[in-house]
Amino acid sequence: MVQYLHPRLDVSFAALSDPTRRGVLEQLGRADASITDLADRFHMTLTGMKKHVGVLEQAGFVITEKIGRVRTCKLGLRRLEEEAAWIERYRTVWEARFDALDEIVEELKSQEKIDG
Amino acid sequence: MVQYLHPRLDVSFAALSDPTRRGVLEQLGRADASITDLADRFHMTLTGMKKHVGVLEQAGFVITEKIGRVRTCKLGLRRLEEEAAWIERYRTVWEARFDALDEIVEELKSQEKIDG
Repeated sequence: MVQYLHPRLDVSFAALSDPTRRGVLEQLGRADASITDLADRFHMTLTGMKKHVGVLEQAGFVITEKIGRVRTCKLGLRRLEEEAAWIERYRTVWEARFDALDEIVEELKSQEKIDG
Repeated sequence: MVQYLHPRLDVSFAALSDPTRRGVLEQLGRADASITDLADRFHMTLTGMKKHVGVLEQAGFVITEKIGRVRTCKLGLRRLEEEAAWIERYRTVWEARFDALDEIVEELKSQEKIDG
């Protein structure tokens, strides 16, 4: 199975690659917020914050709802399951690879002792 | 503690946002490879692959070593610990938030039954 071809991961990792966007997600984890609140909190213009929220919305991390003149943001339904799974799989492969290297190093060391 | 301001996460999530770069990491998890091997495998030009490997190298995910005329790529020392931690923390917050919503919905439902 080709794991790396996963367009959703492209969008979500790109969304997570910005500190303000990660901050917005952490903030919305505490409480829903309007775009104006978020702009204030992160010292940004409304336009700048709207762009960030748009990226998070496209990735499915945030949903927004306009009531009257206020657009409220809340956490979306994506719980980063695929992202966590990809990273976990990578970590397993990584450990296996470095364990194998450790074994080779140990073998070389013990060989050296015998030779020396 | 401000978690989202973490420049390393910017670089690593951006590195992971591309399917070829994720594919290269999966491939290097199986075996070291030269840039030429990787370019062939992913049907890319050498220049294109060099760029991708450069991004992975900057993120600390890959190290390269030139022996003679061949540049060999292998997995770097970063095991995605911080990335996994960030995602795990987000998932915990997410679950808590949606559990709280569930409770509200349940409460409203039982209220409806009483009122009805």
